[in-house]
Amino acid sequence: MKRRILLLSVFAAGLAAQSFTPTNPSALAARRWREQHERVIVDEFVTLLAIPNIAADRANIQRNAETIVAMMQKRGIASQLVSVPGGNPVIFGEMKTPGASRTIVFYAHYDGQPLDPKEWATPPFTPTLRDKQLDRDGQVIPLPAPGRPFNPEWRLYARGAADDKAPIIALLAAVDAIRAAGLKSKSNIKFAFEGEEEAGSANLEKTLAANKELFAGDLWLMCDGPLHQTRRQLIAFGARGGVRVDVTVFGARGELHSGHYGNWAPNPALLLAKLLASMKDDNGRVLVEHFYDDVEPLSTTEKRALAEAPDIDSDLMHEFWLGATEGGGKKLTELITLPSLNIRGMASSRIGNQASNVIPASATATMDVRLVKGMDPQRTAQRVIDHIRKQGFFVVDQEPGAEVRMAHPKVARVASSGGEAATRTPMDLPISQEVIRVVESARGPAVKLPNMGGGLPLVSVERPLGTHTIVISIGNHDNNQHSYNENLRLQNLWDGIELMAALLSM
Amino acid sequence: MKRRILLLSVFAAGLAAQSFTPTNPSALAARRWREQHERVIVDEFVTLLAIPNIAADRANIQRNAETIVAMMQKRGIASQLVSVPGGNPVIFGEMKTPGASRTIVFYAHYDGQPLDPKEWATPPFTPTLRDKQLDRDGQVIPLPAPGRPFNPEWRLYARGAADDKAPIIALLAAVDAIRAAGLKSKSNIKFAFEGEEEAGSANLEKTLAANKELFAGDLWLMCDGPLHQTRRQLIAFGARGGVRVDVTVFGARGELHSGHYGNWAPNPALLLAKLLASMKDDNGRVLVEHFYDDVEPLSTTEKRALAEAPDIDSDLMHEFWLGATEGGGKKLTELITLPSLNIRGMASSRIGNQASNVIPASATATMDVRLVKGMDPQRTAQRVIDHIRKQGFFVVDQEPGAEVRMAHPKVARVASSGGEAATRTPMDLPISQEVIRVVESARGPAVKLPNMGGGLPLVSVERPLGTHTIVISIGNHDNNQHSYNENLRLQNLWDGIELMAALLSM
Repeated sequence: MKRRILLLSVFAAGLAAQSFTPTNPSALAARRWREQHERVIVDEFVTLLAIPNIAADRANIQRNAETIVAMMQKRGIASQLVSVPGGNPVIFGEMKTPGASRTIVFYAHYDGQPLDPKEWATPPFTPTLRDKQLDRDGQVIPLPAPGRPFNPEWRLYARGAADDKAPIIALLAAVDAIRAAGLKSKSNIKFAFEGEEEAGSANLEKTLAANKELFAGDLWLMCDGPLHQTRRQLIAFGARGGVRVDVTVFGARGELHSGHYGNWAPNPALLLAKLLASMKDDNGRVLVEHFYDDVEPLSTTEKRALAEAPDIDSDLMHEFWLGATEGGGKKLTELITLPSLNIRGMASSRIGNQASNVIPASATATMDVRLVKGMDPQRTAQRVIDHIRKQGFFVVDQEPGAEVRMAHPKVARVASSGGEAATRTPMDLPISQEVIRVVESARGPAVKLPNMGGGLPLVSVERPLGTHTIVISIGNHDNNQHSYNENLRLQNLWDGIELMAALLSM
Repeated sequence: MKRRILLLSVFAAGLAAQSFTPTNPSALAARRWREQHERVIVDEFVTLLAIPNIAADRANIQRNAETIVAMMQKRGIASQLVSVPGGNPVIFGEMKTPGASRTIVFYAHYDGQPLDPKEWATPPFTPTLRDKQLDRDGQVIPLPAPGRPFNPEWRLYARGAADDKAPIIALLAAVDAIRAAGLKSKSNIKFAFEGEEEAGSANLEKTLAANKELFAGDLWLMCDGPLHQTRRQLIAFGARGGVRVDVTVFGARGELHSGHYGNWAPNPALLLAKLLASMKDDNGRVLVEHFYDDVEPLSTTEKRALAEAPDIDSDLMHEFWLGATEGGGKKLTELITLPSLNIRGMASSRIGNQASNVIPASATATMDVRLVKGMDPQRTAQRVIDHIRKQGFFVVDQEPGAEVRMAHPKVARVASSGGEAATRTPMDLPISQEVIRVVESARGPAVKLPNMGGGLPLVSVERPLGTHTIVISIGNHDNNQHSYNENLRLQNLWDGIELMAALLSM
């Protein structure tokens, strides 16, 4: 269902690929290696992309996992599949470094978003090279002959090309490059590749909790998500959490004729409208009492990072056809460090020419609340429910019957689900600062955000293992992830290999 | 689409059939006639109900019209079909009374609501007798042998049984009864049976305007609609008008990820909620400026009639499972003499498990405004549009493009359609008072309302002909009109024959 989300297909239209020459020796070694092995790297990528990877397709998930394990073992990386009953396997791999005192774990996921093949220009599991973006009339081209270079603006189309098999291939190529150059890591390295991130990571925490020693590390680098819209490297030190709230308010037990009963029978669509309107002011500030109470303030370093982040707000407004934004003038990068309350959808009876001359029987809104560090999902959901009560609603958690509805002027059914807390790794930590230095030595000045606006299963890692997480991305921002025609720009893979080589050498 | 409307199937469960002995000689004559001709009357009814009567089905509409004309001509009633290009025929009939100085026109319609046969317990055009209501486990029974009486609580199931072929059959039987008794009318009598009322009476006004002399009358008795829920006779002296207003408000040009952009990109569902919330206060009073300015106040007689109308509000609340009503304690019968603003439906993106983690791209509400006498549909729609502007929206009447949307913080597309004015015939008119006397002499104390809450094509009659209209009903209130399993309780037909006989003799 996420495929309708507007994608930034034309946002960075004018941007040239950044040409940054790494100062990091491993990144430089990776560049040399890649220039000589482009076809081999792409062939390995194509092999992996050709295996369907929807989380619910257990047989193919297993094939993916075994293929990746074989790729790791070919390189002598000790690896195994780890799972809990009912869960897809997490691929574990390890490269020990004698004398190293710390361990860095590289996370990626090999499953992909569910899809409808009919929406794809070419089959999602037939990796297809195009000479440019499909939206710009990109044509299908064959892989170049071995030894011939790839144009870095070419794109490889397949489910998982960007989200999130690319980091796996980049890591494996980076391992080859480092070894070929005789370079070494300063840390122990572990790999953890999940097989059901797009299905909600339902078993990740359980799997890690059951295998704490195996997955222990001083830092998890979460290799997922796209670069910043400016094509600069993005380092996000956290993610927002979230909790979903569904509200249904009720009118009569069935639809009523709006002529016979209009302005006598209460209209649940209006009741819902008034309730929703009470939740936010015109600047988008949430009016639910105590909503912001537990928000952990940003540190000086985090505030500075926000101030340094590129201001793309007016470009985004143009891209999205917006004449205004919420937040009283605050920038997007700052606003996503605050919690949000969003109406995902709203419905009551029918609209337009499908509408009848009725007073609807009920009205429903599905909302998501995005949380930031310090906020508890259940407590926040309870505050929303308290707010609904304060608006005069009798709140129930099941479909209310006649007695309940006749006993109260306003009745709302409220259900909250899917609570996940937010995390934010302090940017001031020595290891955070080291990651920034290493990333920038490989990729140039990075955009550093205290947290992403969206969610990632960071808590599922931090909670069982007591570790820190930092999100590192390599995909192009216009990769159509979660949609049809997902693709990776080859330059992003090349850059990703250099980035991973630098991080593997930390 | 009207079939989902909640029906009053059990409201009058405890009511016994009223046994009122008419004081009106024509009504008494009709009772005697009916008691001797029940089977013949029902046979004629069944013949008519067996002809499908959906307005769009032109061939069958023609068959209906010709069948009714034949029934009239068999009785020597001069009749003809009158139509305008593209319209279904209006059946015209006339019985002149020598020396009469006034003309009364009896209106009914022979078309029925569109339907889905799959929803019906028995085929809608196979008239089926049941020993009681289907909802009360009524079983199919054969017609009794000629000469054997019908149980008046039996019900005849077919599309049009109540709405609105019953008055046609009642009128024809009443004509037979009056003649058999040697009674006469004091007025010239005309009949006008429409063939597309359920399709919105699109051609009625045109047809009457093109044939003013033919259809001229001092009073049109609009024989349509059900009795009062208490089973008392209903006389409604008008109907509310209406105008539809569709509003769509816009966010980004597509759905946005609620994590990445939540509390930065404006949410159109919230904008719509705030807009709708601004339109009515918590008592249901419409806050649109000047909304009530043109409402023509009720006369003393009309107010008295309202005060005398039965108070069924608490019964209705129980029936509908309502814990409150709008209107600050005013009764339903009074509230429907005021204009209303009602949300028919509301939609934005998707809800529940269909919802995505998005900020919707747009949000739409379809509203209906019910008008009372004095209000102009277009002026009222304009006042709603002015209100939307006052809430800060730039209002357009077409899908707005990028430039418009980027130039304004809030943009709403608003379309109004289907405006029809309300009418209300003064209850003080001598002819109004005469109708009340005649009806009550045939049917006992009636419920008299200044207007119905819903709409009827009264303006389409009054405007071209400069006449008055009064609405007289005969169907049971629980007739499932506009829904599946429409039915007529036989006692209502018997009573209707007596009522029509009395009115034909006016």
